[in-house]
Amino acid sequence: MSQAAHFLPIAHQLADAARAAILPYYRSGLAIDDKADASPVTLADRGAEQAMRALLAQLLPEHGIIGEEFGVERDDAEWVWVLDPVDGTKSFIIGRPTFCTLIGLLHHGKPVLGLIDQPVLNERWVGVAGQGSSLNGQPIKASAIASLAQAKLGSTGPQYLPGAAGEQFARLQAAARFTVWGGDAYLYALLAGGGLELVAEHGLKLHDFAALAPVVEGAGGVMTDWQGRPLTRDSAGDVLAAGNAALHGSALALLQAS
Amino acid sequence: MSQAAHFLPIAHQLADAARAAILPYYRSGLAIDDKADASPVTLADRGAEQAMRALLAQLLPEHGIIGEEFGVERDDAEWVWVLDPVDGTKSFIIGRPTFCTLIGLLHHGKPVLGLIDQPVLNERWVGVAGQGSSLNGQPIKASAIASLAQAKLGSTGPQYLPGAAGEQFARLQAAARFTVWGGDAYLYALLAGGGLELVAEHGLKLHDFAALAPVVEGAGGVMTDWQGRPLTRDSAGDVLAAGNAALHGSALALLQAS
Repeated sequence: MSQAAHFLPIAHQLADAARAAILPYYRSGLAIDDKADASPVTLADRGAEQAMRALLAQLLPEHGIIGEEFGVERDDAEWVWVLDPVDGTKSFIIGRPTFCTLIGLLHHGKPVLGLIDQPVLNERWVGVAGQGSSLNGQPIKASAIASLAQAKLGSTGPQYLPGAAGEQFARLQAAARFTVWGGDAYLYALLAGGGLELVAEHGLKLHDFAALAPVVEGAGGVMTDWQGRPLTRDSAGDVLAAGNAALHGSALALLQAS
Repeated sequence: MSQAAHFLPIAHQLADAARAAILPYYRSGLAIDDKADASPVTLADRGAEQAMRALLAQLLPEHGIIGEEFGVERDDAEWVWVLDPVDGTKSFIIGRPTFCTLIGLLHHGKPVLGLIDQPVLNERWVGVAGQGSSLNGQPIKASAIASLAQAKLGSTGPQYLPGAAGEQFARLQAAARFTVWGGDAYLYALLAGGGLELVAEHGLKLHDFAALAPVVEGAGGVMTDWQGRPLTRDSAGDVLAAGNAALHGSALALLQAS
């Protein structure tokens, strides 16, 4: 068992706690002003992160935490947890069950364990460095399609691909079989499961991508920045995930063409 | 009970039959070439429409049928069923549970009953002229938010909004609180449930929108073309849905501004 795998049961405990904090607010009070401090999405987001932080404080007090809502603790620790309690807040707000809880674990700054949880669908996608990835315990495998012309591409929205990033993405889009929009982190889970071959996004934060790379890579996929470099806590947030190395190479060449 | 409501039990039977035909193919054989004739999405699409047509032939042989896959029968009948077995085929192909089965009923060319079924989520959204709309039997209500600046907007993808339509949509997008992409017919179901306030799309076919208007309108929403005209079987396929009449008026004015 790898060192990272040792912490997998705790990652599941965190995801269970997040689910319990989030589900009561799903599609609750749709009439409420969801910009207010006490909006359902804010209550779900904060409640889930607090529950996960409380568990980590109790079970692994020497580990670091970087959370979307409540910031950084001990981020110079050997092991650092990266928590995004509700990724895809807009999907959560409109009542679409493609938002996710993201739980990543960094070892010396490198993502080695990732968990993508969709509480409404009861889907938990997990990846651990050195092991295969799984959906609810069943092994998953990314697509072997290596041809750009056959590749299905996804991204959350054109508004997140401004300027040059939009032009780079447009080249990928022109070469791909088709493009689906929307989906946030859930697109990377579907890629790990073989549903689509490419996801390209720009301007992500560490808490958006830390949990994704181990899930994609454990399924046989490749996930890097737009320069082809491995993702670390210092990555700028341009992310390219592909179902296999050959397709990743072709997609990267298109993103970088000038 | 309205005349249309008389046929609601049959609409449920159709949706049940479609579910049984579709679910075995969901996320099956993701490695298979999904452009082939025997791809999972094609088998689901055809199997579901055949099952619905067989039921209608048996139960309502005098009614007309317009189906996405197998064309037109008796479309000069007083009552015509409009069937889209798998709306959102790209979502189905990538394994995202936001595709829907759409069942609409036209009376003298006007949509009077609509059913939006999501088999994986077990969500059935229903609207009947003269009655309220419901999700799995529970009454639903569209949003009362009348301000464009607070309105959440959705559309399936920018590639479906070419040229002038894209410019018109961009005005709406600039005025709205935020825009979510992806989702196909499921966005209209969420609008009827109060999750978002506006959906605008271009170039829809009759089978894409016939089932949606009764669900949106039964929930208190308004759904027309981009000229503000009621949707009929002769509509061109520009569609604007809003949670309420005041917001619909403001959105329409923006779409039409020049």
